[in-house]
Amino acid sequence: MKILNIVPITSDIWTDEIDAYTTSKLLPDTIVTTKILTHGPASIECEYDEAYAIPEVIRLCVEGEKEGFDAVFINCFGDPGVRAAREMVSVPVFGGFEPAILYSLGMSDKVGIVTVLPNVVPMLEGLIAKNGLNSRVTSLRYVSMPVLDLFDLNKLIDALIEESKKAVDLDGAGAIVLGCTGMVGVKEAVEKGLADAGKPVPVIEAAQAALVLIETYVRMGWKHSRKTYMAPPAKKRVWWSGDAVEEF
Amino acid sequence: MKILNIVPITSDIWTDEIDAYTTSKLLPDTIVTTKILTHGPASIECEYDEAYAIPEVIRLCVEGEKEGFDAVFINCFGDPGVRAAREMVSVPVFGGFEPAILYSLGMSDKVGIVTVLPNVVPMLEGLIAKNGLNSRVTSLRYVSMPVLDLFDLNKLIDALIEESKKAVDLDGAGAIVLGCTGMVGVKEAVEKGLADAGKPVPVIEAAQAALVLIETYVRMGWKHSRKTYMAPPAKKRVWWSGDAVEEF
Amino acid sequence: MKILNIVPITSDIWTDEIDAYTTSKLLPDTIVTTKILTHGPASIECEYDEAYAIPEVIRLCVEGEKEGFDAVFINCFGDPGVRAAREMVSVPVFGGFEPAILYSLGMSDKVGIVTVLPNVVPMLEGLIAKNGLNSRVTSLRYVSMPVLDLFDLNKLIDALIEESKKAVDLDGAGAIVLGCTGMVGVKEAVEKGLADAGKPVPVIEAAQAALVLIETYVRMGWKHSRKTYMAPPAKKRVWWSGDAVEEF
Amino acid sequence: MKILNIVPITSDIWTDEIDAYTTSKLLPDTIVTTKILTHGPASIECEYDEAYAIPEVIRLCVEGEKEGFDAVFINCFGDPGVRAAREMVSVPVFGGFEPAILYSLGMSDKVGIVTVLPNVVPMLEGLIAKNGLNSRVTSLRYVSMPVLDLFDLNKLIDALIEESKKAVDLDGAGAIVLGCTGMVGVKEAVEKGLADAGKPVPVIEAAQAALVLIETYVRMGWKHSRKTYMAPPAKKRVWWSGDAVEEF
Amino acid sequence: MKILNIVPITSDIWTDEIDAYTTSKLLPDTIVTTKILTHGPASIECEYDEAYAIPEVIRLCVEGEKEGFDAVFINCFGDPGVRAAREMVSVPVFGGFEPAILYSLGMSDKVGIVTVLPNVVPMLEGLIAKNGLNSRVTSLRYVSMPVLDLFDLNKLIDALIEESKKAVDLDGAGAIVLGCTGMVGVKEAVEKGLADAGKPVPVIEAAQAALVLIETYVRMGWKHSRKTYMAPPAKKRVWWSGDAVEEF
Amino acid sequence: MKILNIVPITSDIWTDEIDAYTTSKLLPDTIVTTKILTHGPASIECEYDEAYAIPEVIRLCVEGEKEGFDAVFINCFGDPGVRAAREMVSVPVFGGFEPAILYSLGMSDKVGIVTVLPNVVPMLEGLIAKNGLNSRVTSLRYVSMPVLDLFDLNKLIDALIEESKKAVDLDGAGAIVLGCTGMVGVKEAVEKGLADAGKPVPVIEAAQAALVLIETYVRMGWKHSRKTYMAPPAKKRVWWSGDAVEEF
Repeated sequence: MKILNIVPITSDIWTDEIDAYTTSKLLPDTIVTTKILTHGPASIECEYDEAYAIPEVIRLCVEGEKEGFDAVFINCFGDPGVRAAREMVSVPVFGGFEPAILYSLGMSDKVGIVTVLPNVVPMLEGLIAKNGLNSRVTSLRYVSMPVLDLFDLNKLIDALIEESKKAVDLDGAGAIVLGCTGMVGVKEAVEKGLADAGKPVPVIEAAQAALVLIETYVRMGWKHSRKTYMAPPAKKRVWWSGDAVEEF
Repeated sequence: MKILNIVPITSDIWTDEIDAYTTSKLLPDTIVTTKILTHGPASIECEYDEAYAIPEVIRLCVEGEKEGFDAVFINCFGDPGVRAAREMVSVPVFGGFEPAILYSLGMSDKVGIVTVLPNVVPMLEGLIAKNGLNSRVTSLRYVSMPVLDLFDLNKLIDALIEESKKAVDLDGAGAIVLGCTGMVGVKEAVEKGLADAGKPVPVIEAAQAALVLIETYVRMGWKHSRKTYMAPPAKKRVWWSGDAVEEF
Repeated sequence: MKILNIVPITSDIWTDEIDAYTTSKLLPDTIVTTKILTHGPASIECEYDEAYAIPEVIRLCVEGEKEGFDAVFINCFGDPGVRAAREMVSVPVFGGFEPAILYSLGMSDKVGIVTVLPNVVPMLEGLIAKNGLNSRVTSLRYVSMPVLDLFDLNKLIDALIEESKKAVDLDGAGAIVLGCTGMVGVKEAVEKGLADAGKPVPVIEAAQAALVLIETYVRMGWKHSRKTYMAPPAKKRVWWSGDAVEEF
Repeated sequence: MKILNIVPITSDIWTDEIDAYTTSKLLPDTIVTTKILTHGPASIECEYDEAYAIPEVIRLCVEGEKEGFDAVFINCFGDPGVRAAREMVSVPVFGGFEPAILYSLGMSDKVGIVTVLPNVVPMLEGLIAKNGLNSRVTSLRYVSMPVLDLFDLNKLIDALIEESKKAVDLDGAGAIVLGCTGMVGVKEAVEKGLADAGKPVPVIEAAQAALVLIETYVRMGWKHSRKTYMAPPAKKRVWWSGDAVEEF
Repeated sequence: MKILNIVPITSDIWTDEIDAYTTSKLLPDTIVTTKILTHGPASIECEYDEAYAIPEVIRLCVEGEKEGFDAVFINCFGDPGVRAAREMVSVPVFGGFEPAILYSLGMSDKVGIVTVLPNVVPMLEGLIAKNGLNSRVTSLRYVSMPVLDLFDLNKLIDALIEESKKAVDLDGAGAIVLGCTGMVGVKEAVEKGLADAGKPVPVIEAAQAALVLIETYVRMGWKHSRKTYMAPPAKKRVWWSGDAVEEF
Repeated sequence: MKILNIVPITSDIWTDEIDAYTTSKLLPDTIVTTKILTHGPASIECEYDEAYAIPEVIRLCVEGEKEGFDAVFINCFGDPGVRAAREMVSVPVFGGFEPAILYSLGMSDKVGIVTVLPNVVPMLEGLIAKNGLNSRVTSLRYVSMPVLDLFDLNKLIDALIEESKKAVDLDGAGAIVLGCTGMVGVKEAVEKGLADAGKPVPVIEAAQAALVLIETYVRMGWKHSRKTYMAPPAKKRVWWSGDAVEEF
């Protein structure tokens, strides 16, 4: 199957290492194609950033379905554009939040998220509330590192272990979700660090979780409900497109 | 004071009658200036429409603050871009949902919304859940009329009375919020229709409610919290701007 | 318009300074007339005090409506008698809790209250629960000062800053509501103290908030719902009135 | 033990039959003494009525404790004055709502209340919400009979069966609480009517339930928590007392 | 009346002292007969233990009803088998959790449980959630002592006081429920210890609470609802019984 | 990988057709081995049945892990023994409820379950409440067919379509979960029936959903949290085993 991986930012941070890590758990015949944005923010760290990422994200989803992709991953933990895109396409569309959280609920009664910056906390609290999961996702902490600094893996791992310990000890979390899809390649070390500290709880990496959920949806033939995600009414819409104004 | 009224669509539906009605309750020295979008949807009836309205909405908010507006009303019941705009500006920003709902809570233990189309129901359910108000907003119904057909006032009034009666009788609502800021000039007739039917409950028109809440915030010197709405981190952002790519 | 300000206690604490501060944000043609109780507690600091304040509060509401007042403010954060009074009159009636809380919800996802004594905490928790706002009002702290000692402004300001900091840091509050309408003239200093401590969150003074909400209701012609607040059935009621027993 | 039964109205409706029925389940050495109010409403059917019943109810509680009563039953389903009285006395104080509801939770996952008039519905919804029991008490219906008309037992029984059936079939209730302590002597017939209609659910009579809970508290030496019900601060309070003004 | 007390373990820990203490509050004509299991765990400290206790517990309930017992107490705070047994018998069946919690709700707005080991915390959290009481039972702590070590009363009392203090101070509990029916004979000392520490909150011993609730149900003729607890459909069931396989 | 499929009943209903259907979506190298119980109920339709299925279910889980199975599916929608088994083994263990519900949450804001008999409704309501999902799983209906009659596929399909329509129209469900793992081979027809009726919502078959979730857990190396599922303390446990009494 073919999955479109939309990295919803204009920074070209998708290296071969990241690609290999993120797709390492997928089936042999699952092909993941990555696209980044031409217009939008360098990274997503607030609702403002999301707002400028979403339009092109949706266009890539629509294009992707036409190009024959079986499903789309919007590679960001804030699920930017997920609901709007589902209105427009029939193939499965997921961001990073929903899959990681759903899988984590099968592991533990209470789950903690450790994300990047305080700026995204209200956004994620909003997602948790909208998903009706306030009694299950009981911890929301952050490492105080911007998205584009996450390449400093040692610093990231230490901070994740530190905050995860608090999530376990102070907030009752029994599983930790890494709350940014840019936290790549660190899950194993965080899990080990927690186990070494006497807190052997599972740690879920969101992009891997999302891709395997998407793969499952395609294998099972599952689609999102058209009762929740109705197709948008036809109407005139005006947009910039390259140099020209486009109507769609 | 000066309030910027952003009608977040590309249709020029803002007539003098609508303007007079919407602003009729404001103080003499409150000046409302209306702007519509150059890029975006003709109307907002789903999350897809919202996604394409929000970027220019935010830009108008930012521009508006620079131009000296004391506050901004994003004239749509779905509150599109409200949270992102609050991150960027310090003046009060409100859409139509939050003010009408907050005021209605002072009138009745349980409140009903009557909106336009089934397409917006999940979006509004999401807002209700995010606002933690599931136990207060107990009814969400729709008249099955698209936004741009709302000018048919008689049809609209009849449909609103019909659905409001159900909200009162079946869902326990004690007050009705008109769930689209395009439902202009009908509140009085709906209220009367309900009273005539033995259901004398208050009806709240969302745009009037929003403007008076905004006016109040300005008079009181109230601002949104920077703990909930932190300023976005500086970074490169690429956007279309007329013919050119703009970085901001 | 004419607003009746019922200070629901028998202590004559309503000074000119307090009057000026409390009404300073109102429109020029809004006239606020203050009445205190002849029978009731010297201050309200528990449900017992409330019980002995409410009967005369309601009588003053009923009288006030007959005298032509356009609305009534029951000047206490516990909203004593508000619901009962609404059953009896058609003009808007508000206490201090509901307006301050509703406005604060527009500022912040999570709100904190700082009140006077631990005695009132269960009472306010009850109000929060009854209003279905447990997920929004996440902090409830107190300064350990009786109502009639609040004139010691420096002590009050210091204590409010101290407890507000905890509300922000430990309970996630993004806005602070002063949880006693006797906390007059300190909002500005508390806000400044918090900003100086790196926690620039809005602080809402409850009496000012209530009066402006009431003014808004009158301007907008809004009334409480008769579905929530039905008129009491006619029946014999016996009460003391001066020296005589009165039936009403 | 000695229990004070306060019938919190000025109507002398407490007949020997009612007394016998209400106390029939108590232990031989449990003596119930009934007092009615000299000042207050003829019956309680709204928050306004409650407000005028509560002051003398509390005074009777305080007096009752001094006279050596081991506990107090405030004989009304709205629990008027219960919380305020608990602040003032150390002996157990219960109204009709709390005991009947607590016992009913042991019988069924979901419980329905059938009360007298629509006027009391918001009051009872408030009690349910304040008690955090919205997910357990899922049905709230009424027979549309005023309190003082409840002596028409056949009419009452028919109406209770009718509304209880709806509670079971439409609202999922598995047990029915009679939502007025004036619904005396009908529980057995209602239970039988429901069983005959193929809905054999338990029916709880509130006054009997309250008295046996109170008796249990006294036997067990249980008291209400002073952390929830703190003693009122000392202060001047002015009240009418017979012909004179009293300070207490 | 005759109550069957099932101690749902295979350890014969039921001494005369424990029997005397547990039944000391019951009526003179209430006879409590104790049975332990022949098959099952030595103590219950996790869901695994529960699973192996439940089958024989239910059989003893069914047998007990046939033998003429008026009600059954399943003497364990985890309520093992309570719901299944209620499906099979008509007499009242209670474990330790439900009665203690229901009674405690009448004492305090917020309640804390102090139990034995961390292993039972998720089990009890599940019971709280299933009972819809998350907003009332706000504290769940443990003394880190296995059930069969609880005979060390001094150690137990000290640990219970220690954890109860935290429940009061940190979690807002106004009443403490001893979260294991094996915590016998210590309630008085814990209550005194808390009072001495300036935290005079009621402490509820679960087995005493359960037995008096059961006694009340029998006196009142109350039974569990057959709408919640429907009789199991007839079918073949195979089980070990002594040396033989039994069908039932 | 090797998955143990425990059909937790003593009826040998596992035909080749059912096996083929249930495992048809799995990976080529996933081997599913089915075991039924020697002791327990013929089918599970109430908590009583569950109680007698669970002990051997857990033993088969423990044995299965020792025999090298990578994961266990307890093939029943009530998740019997899942939590207890997780305490004892480290390999993933799932029943039918949790996987189907978690996947369905990704499809629709609100989900409906259609199960077999009214008897299991309280049990499933308990699972929903325990999982904190009351606001997401908004519909719970049944076809009134016992488990062992589900082979009548035409009757089953018609009843499922009928009840699913009500779930969509009356309860707002946007996706339907088949609430019994014995509802095999009908999902496609139900989905088609709903689409033909103008309600094109996804239908999730629980056993297929569970097996693919389990497969995913094994592929990803995910395990349940040892903070939620702690290993049981060592102690003496007595059980029947064939003809002999066994200690473990």
